[in-house]
Amino acid sequence: MKIAIYGYGNLGKGVECAVNAAPDAELFGVFTRRAPNTVKTVSGAKVYHVDDILKYETEIDVVIICGGSATDLPTMTPSLAEHFNVIDSFDTHARIPEHFDNVDNVAKTTNHTALISGGWDPGMFSINRLYASSILPNGKDYTFWGKGVSQGHSDAIRRIDGVKDARQYTVPISAALDAVRSGANPELTTREKHLRECFVVAEEGADKAKIENDIKTMPNYFADYDTIVHFISEEELQRDHATLPHGGFVIRTGTTGVNHENKHIIEYSLKLDSNPEFTASVLVAYARAVNKLYNRGDYGCKTVFDIAPADLSPLSAEEIRKTML
Amino acid sequence: MKIAIYGYGNLGKGVECAVNAAPDAELFGVFTRRAPNTVKTVSGAKVYHVDDILKYETEIDVVIICGGSATDLPTMTPSLAEHFNVIDSFDTHARIPEHFDNVDNVAKTTNHTALISGGWDPGMFSINRLYASSILPNGKDYTFWGKGVSQGHSDAIRRIDGVKDARQYTVPISAALDAVRSGANPELTTREKHLRECFVVAEEGADKAKIENDIKTMPNYFADYDTIVHFISEEELQRDHATLPHGGFVIRTGTTGVNHENKHIIEYSLKLDSNPEFTASVLVAYARAVNKLYNRGDYGCKTVFDIAPADLSPLSAEEIRKTML
Repeated sequence: MKIAIYGYGNLGKGVECAVNAAPDAELFGVFTRRAPNTVKTVSGAKVYHVDDILKYETEIDVVIICGGSATDLPTMTPSLAEHFNVIDSFDTHARIPEHFDNVDNVAKTTNHTALISGGWDPGMFSINRLYASSILPNGKDYTFWGKGVSQGHSDAIRRIDGVKDARQYTVPISAALDAVRSGANPELTTREKHLRECFVVAEEGADKAKIENDIKTMPNYFADYDTIVHFISEEELQRDHATLPHGGFVIRTGTTGVNHENKHIIEYSLKLDSNPEFTASVLVAYARAVNKLYNRGDYGCKTVFDIAPADLSPLSAEEIRKTML
Repeated sequence: MKIAIYGYGNLGKGVECAVNAAPDAELFGVFTRRAPNTVKTVSGAKVYHVDDILKYETEIDVVIICGGSATDLPTMTPSLAEHFNVIDSFDTHARIPEHFDNVDNVAKTTNHTALISGGWDPGMFSINRLYASSILPNGKDYTFWGKGVSQGHSDAIRRIDGVKDARQYTVPISAALDAVRSGANPELTTREKHLRECFVVAEEGADKAKIENDIKTMPNYFADYDTIVHFISEEELQRDHATLPHGGFVIRTGTTGVNHENKHIIEYSLKLDSNPEFTASVLVAYARAVNKLYNRGDYGCKTVFDIAPADLSPLSAEEIRKTML
């Protein structure tokens, strides 16, 4: 299958690496809004301008759209689904039903297959919530994120007056994880589950006390959490906080038995050196599934919930049953 | 959906509890080879003789077959698939391709939907091996089992002369788990991954040294492992080893990036108070999927690899997208 990358930031670069690692995928090229000759790809993939993509309608099997959820994907994904099989990592949870309907309408009308909200959350974590809750109806789900860099929270800090740069880590609180794993079914507040640790580079002469207060009291982002703020130099930020690790835990505890006397714990966890490269790896596996569904005539918009595990694998059904069941 | 249980041992009792816990399932009844009036079900389910099952062909949506893999399932599952949608937990890995073909032939000829090898291994562990290897092609899988009771190993000890009863625990070795989680990609021998701990009730006057030696040198079962043997009284066995806990870990470590510079760890783990009740809970979730596939006209034999996560849930596609994605 030939894959095109639409948008070339951290996620697009990750997809380039993941396509190169896949035994059955070939990179058609990268489409960018910038002048193609100014973009150098990490593995030498060809670069095209986004305006030219329709010229290659018949040559591309799946377009992996690597735009942002806030403004790019709500228009990009439905519009590209008119001409291509597509996949995105749309992660604005509240707007998923609306985005799904928009993409589904286009894909069904034009006979394409699309998948939205691929990645790890939404994505692998969502699947694990679904599997675990279907198996243990008498139970309770917990999702913890981190330790990892939240780009949204880092951006929010950067928008504060006097902040030159910042990196925010979401940190799951061990005591809460332990309480969940004990099967005690605790009710946990937002503050009890995660803390937020911020590394901030202030501009010269900035009022650090005011910056710290602005961060800690910021509604939605920080006010409901215990937040730690460290001021560091630009050199320290570059040296110690240049990468984008992430991860987390989906845990369900539940009971079975005549009198609910038996406890069970299902846990799925990820520990990722690079959030964008792992997300990209998930997207490439789902691009394979999108291509298989398209070839079977199964059109319309899908999510990870609709894809059977076998469709993610480059191996045949017989090989999988023989080697992995 | 109406579910029938075929075979009423530990697994059948677990299915009875799991059907009662499912919001959308109803128990038709239990079919047994024993005289029905001698069988008392844990929640009062009706009991029928296996010879009468064809009388209820139109009243049962899915039959969950709770027989043993060695001799029961290879004949039971194909023969019941002639008349019913069926699901089993066949776990003789080497014979899965043959069993699959047998069931598939019957189910396709008679327009039924069947699923074989449901449970947690094969089952949830298999799915996790497949997902993880599809996402991280540059990587390595590890499966650890336990700490938990292996019924096969317990039975093997009971067959030794002078043994009255026995319970064998499979124990994953922490140092091996830690090495895997470090991302070091270790090559581990059988002996390095698990140890086997046995609690044995000897008959009066039996030669304990000989029993211990017979266990530790038993090929396939114990010879390749470090094995610990404890002799205990029958009372102690009843008091301390009456339950059937189990669990384990599926871990994949892999790398991404232009130079494979980023490491990722995917881990799925189960900690189960009751192996048969958890297995039963998985089977009931997959019975729901079998029923949905049947209603869509998707006949033939399936495995957990062929079932999209959404089909395991009692919720609608819209509800799942809204609440779990």
